[in-house]
Amino acid sequence: MEKAILIVQCKDQKGIVAKVSEFLYKYKGNILEIDQHVDEEIGMFFMRASWELESFAIQKEQIAKTFEMEVAQFLNMKFDLYFNSPKPRMAIFVSKLSHCLFDILSRYYSGQFQVEIPLVISNHLDLKPVVTSFRIPFYHLPVDKSNKMAVEKEQIALLKQHKVDFIVLARYMQILSGNFINEFPNRIINIHHSFLPAFVGAKPYHAAYERGVKIIGATAHYVTDELDAGPIIEQEVARVRHHNSPSDLVQIGQDVEKVVLSKAIKYHLESKILAYRNKTVIFY
Amino acid sequence: MEKAILIVQCKDQKGIVAKVSEFLYKYKGNILEIDQHVDEEIGMFFMRASWELESFAIQKEQIAKTFEMEVAQFLNMKFDLYFNSPKPRMAIFVSKLSHCLFDILSRYYSGQFQVEIPLVISNHLDLKPVVTSFRIPFYHLPVDKSNKMAVEKEQIALLKQHKVDFIVLARYMQILSGNFINEFPNRIINIHHSFLPAFVGAKPYHAAYERGVKIIGATAHYVTDELDAGPIIEQEVARVRHHNSPSDLVQIGQDVEKVVLSKAIKYHLESKILAYRNKTVIFY
Amino acid sequence: MEKAILIVQCKDQKGIVAKVSEFLYKYKGNILEIDQHVDEEIGMFFMRASWELESFAIQKEQIAKTFEMEVAQFLNMKFDLYFNSPKPRMAIFVSKLSHCLFDILSRYYSGQFQVEIPLVISNHLDLKPVVTSFRIPFYHLPVDKSNKMAVEKEQIALLKQHKVDFIVLARYMQILSGNFINEFPNRIINIHHSFLPAFVGAKPYHAAYERGVKIIGATAHYVTDELDAGPIIEQEVARVRHHNSPSDLVQIGQDVEKVVLSKAIKYHLESKILAYRNKTVIFY
Amino acid sequence: MEKAILIVQCKDQKGIVAKVSEFLYKYKGNILEIDQHVDEEIGMFFMRASWELESFAIQKEQIAKTFEMEVAQFLNMKFDLYFNSPKPRMAIFVSKLSHCLFDILSRYYSGQFQVEIPLVISNHLDLKPVVTSFRIPFYHLPVDKSNKMAVEKEQIALLKQHKVDFIVLARYMQILSGNFINEFPNRIINIHHSFLPAFVGAKPYHAAYERGVKIIGATAHYVTDELDAGPIIEQEVARVRHHNSPSDLVQIGQDVEKVVLSKAIKYHLESKILAYRNKTVIFY
Repeated sequence: MEKAILIVQCKDQKGIVAKVSEFLYKYKGNILEIDQHVDEEIGMFFMRASWELESFAIQKEQIAKTFEMEVAQFLNMKFDLYFNSPKPRMAIFVSKLSHCLFDILSRYYSGQFQVEIPLVISNHLDLKPVVTSFRIPFYHLPVDKSNKMAVEKEQIALLKQHKVDFIVLARYMQILSGNFINEFPNRIINIHHSFLPAFVGAKPYHAAYERGVKIIGATAHYVTDELDAGPIIEQEVARVRHHNSPSDLVQIGQDVEKVVLSKAIKYHLESKILAYRNKTVIFY
Repeated sequence: MEKAILIVQCKDQKGIVAKVSEFLYKYKGNILEIDQHVDEEIGMFFMRASWELESFAIQKEQIAKTFEMEVAQFLNMKFDLYFNSPKPRMAIFVSKLSHCLFDILSRYYSGQFQVEIPLVISNHLDLKPVVTSFRIPFYHLPVDKSNKMAVEKEQIALLKQHKVDFIVLARYMQILSGNFINEFPNRIINIHHSFLPAFVGAKPYHAAYERGVKIIGATAHYVTDELDAGPIIEQEVARVRHHNSPSDLVQIGQDVEKVVLSKAIKYHLESKILAYRNKTVIFY
Repeated sequence: MEKAILIVQCKDQKGIVAKVSEFLYKYKGNILEIDQHVDEEIGMFFMRASWELESFAIQKEQIAKTFEMEVAQFLNMKFDLYFNSPKPRMAIFVSKLSHCLFDILSRYYSGQFQVEIPLVISNHLDLKPVVTSFRIPFYHLPVDKSNKMAVEKEQIALLKQHKVDFIVLARYMQILSGNFINEFPNRIINIHHSFLPAFVGAKPYHAAYERGVKIIGATAHYVTDELDAGPIIEQEVARVRHHNSPSDLVQIGQDVEKVVLSKAIKYHLESKILAYRNKTVIFY
Repeated sequence: MEKAILIVQCKDQKGIVAKVSEFLYKYKGNILEIDQHVDEEIGMFFMRASWELESFAIQKEQIAKTFEMEVAQFLNMKFDLYFNSPKPRMAIFVSKLSHCLFDILSRYYSGQFQVEIPLVISNHLDLKPVVTSFRIPFYHLPVDKSNKMAVEKEQIALLKQHKVDFIVLARYMQILSGNFINEFPNRIINIHHSFLPAFVGAKPYHAAYERGVKIIGATAHYVTDELDAGPIIEQEVARVRHHNSPSDLVQIGQDVEKVVLSKAIKYHLESKILAYRNKTVIFY
């Protein structure tokens, strides 16, 4: 079923739900989901609504314009409009670790992820056989200090050529430049292997071991200029014990990472995420 | 802040959200929360909306009638209207076990539960000192096979005299008659000490031990005529190991029970539960 | 590091730990792990100990005999002796669903599972490309009512020819005969897609939906003659809400299934499971 | 049943389990539990064993000395010996928040905690009625900057007078001096209202809200000189959503706090905790 998803934000005020739902009703939209959120600390209103396109009286291409003219401009409202078709196009960046990649590709294979994967980019060759066994093009772009900017340029060119909508860093071990990130605002999902904001940095499981924590975690977030500090999409945890070595923690953690990353991808694919003020609203 | 909560159900059709939100907007209601659910298997629509009463242009007493006339009748809609003030009045039934009772009373004490507790009824005297230390009237009504009907009559009389809105069975070890239950449809909350539908009956932790399960649970549900089979409000689980004896399971289970029961009470107090077809919708 | 793992069971009595650990010390075994369990209801003692083989003064092949003569016979003790090398040989049975298979194979690929997978057997061809992309032999043995016995014979022959130590049913949709099961006692691991003992049978997620449960689960267990009733190895759960359709539950459930099954396989690979009286002790 | 609990630590070496268990066997000790742990990073061995005292051939008062002479001195071993009788004596420090106090007292009331509570100390009067309803002496010792040292002296005197074994800070809002802490090394349990090491400090739930985390937590730890940095005993988490306000987080967090603190108390009461190098081993 083809559907449209509308996510709006504006100053909180009376009548917003009425005006948006009246608009959808007027044009014969059958509402499938509606969810709203008010951030009372800042007086902002957020809403997500989805409806069937088949019976809708406005052409797909005209919806945004019509909604702007009939509703949004009067409420000083910002909005995004999404459609579940055609499928979003996702690029995956990997290095050497395979657990997140396999989890994503197995969901792609089984049809759980309604997505196109036009390419996988890696700075290493290790995972090329995995990627090609799924008949997905694999680009090997080694990175070192000297060529980082040039490689990023090449990456961006590939992403544009393949009309990529968003990027998943599936344990890609490189830090992206601000320049790269700004090309894809709130469209780069990273998995950090700790329960942020604890244990920021490169070796969080070892830090967790040193601190003797009883629970470890992983965090999927949108990438922003500030390292490991972007809006958190999803987090999950697992219990550990004193007898778990650092390498046990790595393994237990990887199970958490792949689950969290796949959940974040799913939310993104279903247009359920609104990022604002370095946080996310997850509508469901 | 005084607020009204409306829960509606009707056949799924276009325009329901628009008509309800238009009604609230027309009378200057500031919507606080709105959540809806469509059961596609049976084509039913459910919605919960809450709004501030202060600025609302309809008198509290007239809201139901006005909504019926202006909205509900045209959509063949059933609805319930709640207010967060005055506080709901809750009776607690206990036997000898104190863990759920303490958890409820400590939330009442700290103001986490916005509720009046006009009385506690028990078939034993054990918990009388606990109850009276919270300055709540305690009624001791011993039950045996011969007097069950008479006692239930007395209980019902007490509940009516104290204008009780709903009843919590906090490990009350007696089975209520259909007659009693029908006096309070979807207004009796029970905590069952297992992860229903597994291990129905009186000694679920021993059954769980025998079966060697690795997880045990507890279930809060509305009481219906069929034992342990009413609409489930909340469930929670805890992990156990082979070295846990049946009495360990009892203790681990009690921690789960009190958490689950208190969550169910909170949902009920906040008018977040809609029960239909032996299930619940929990709006949040 | 090569190591030996000893799992013993006998009537509970004084001095068992002393005698076993004295035996290991006498022959210069460096104990790596020791864990014990007493089932007080039946007065039985269980223990698992692992130690390094390198410095051990008894030849690998003589350990069992020596332990029998010097310790076990005097305590009327049953024991099993395992070595972590050579790697155990695991067969996987699948039908059409890929989620568990991918999870297992990705752990095999990354070296997380120290196991050989000499073959995968399926009654359908769907997953053949997946299996062969991992360079594992795939056997297609279609089953129907008429040929079931003959196919099982063929399966057993293949398993013996490939020197298989244990079998994983990764959502293999066929019921194995008692005859087949008895060939591999406590060596067939099945994943059942529900939180057993609730929702036994073929469509548990639909049953869970009908009952309106708030938590669903999955159970890995050894296969016994009685369907879905063998010793439980591991269980896990996930929270669901009223808005989850039966097909949502299937998807959420599959995430749980693959995690649970992989944990059970890991316990089995590390010789951490003792099955007795239709339960398991999981040493760790 | 009276039992002894021995917790030992020494450099890892062959034969430790054998020598300890041989000692227990020689004197007719029936081992109830035995658990060990090797920290391979530092080459240290830790073990906990418990056994019945009734049949044990050494007088309670002579056990430590005998064990020292016959075992510990040869292995350069440090050890602690505990008995489950008489019951440990626990002091509780509170301020104004009641949730942890109620949880502890309800477990004390029901007999789940095998403990004496000779006194509760508070810097406020708010919880006095709660404490006295359990017939426990309540000491009101207001603290401000000017009298802190004097009050601590008074507290220590009271604790000694009441022969207190360990102290629980049940959301006691004062920071104890190093001097006080050193009087009770690894015998002061604090509950911190965050998932340490994240959100150290006074208002962690507000910090968690600002950061937009999806999971919050609580941490029970032994108090050391460095604030919020002592050995972690237990942690637990709860899931939160964007629609939860800071005060929601406080309430959800309090449910986690009371569970975590009570678990930590239970581990301490059962002598299951060994603290070393700012971590804990939790034997079970």
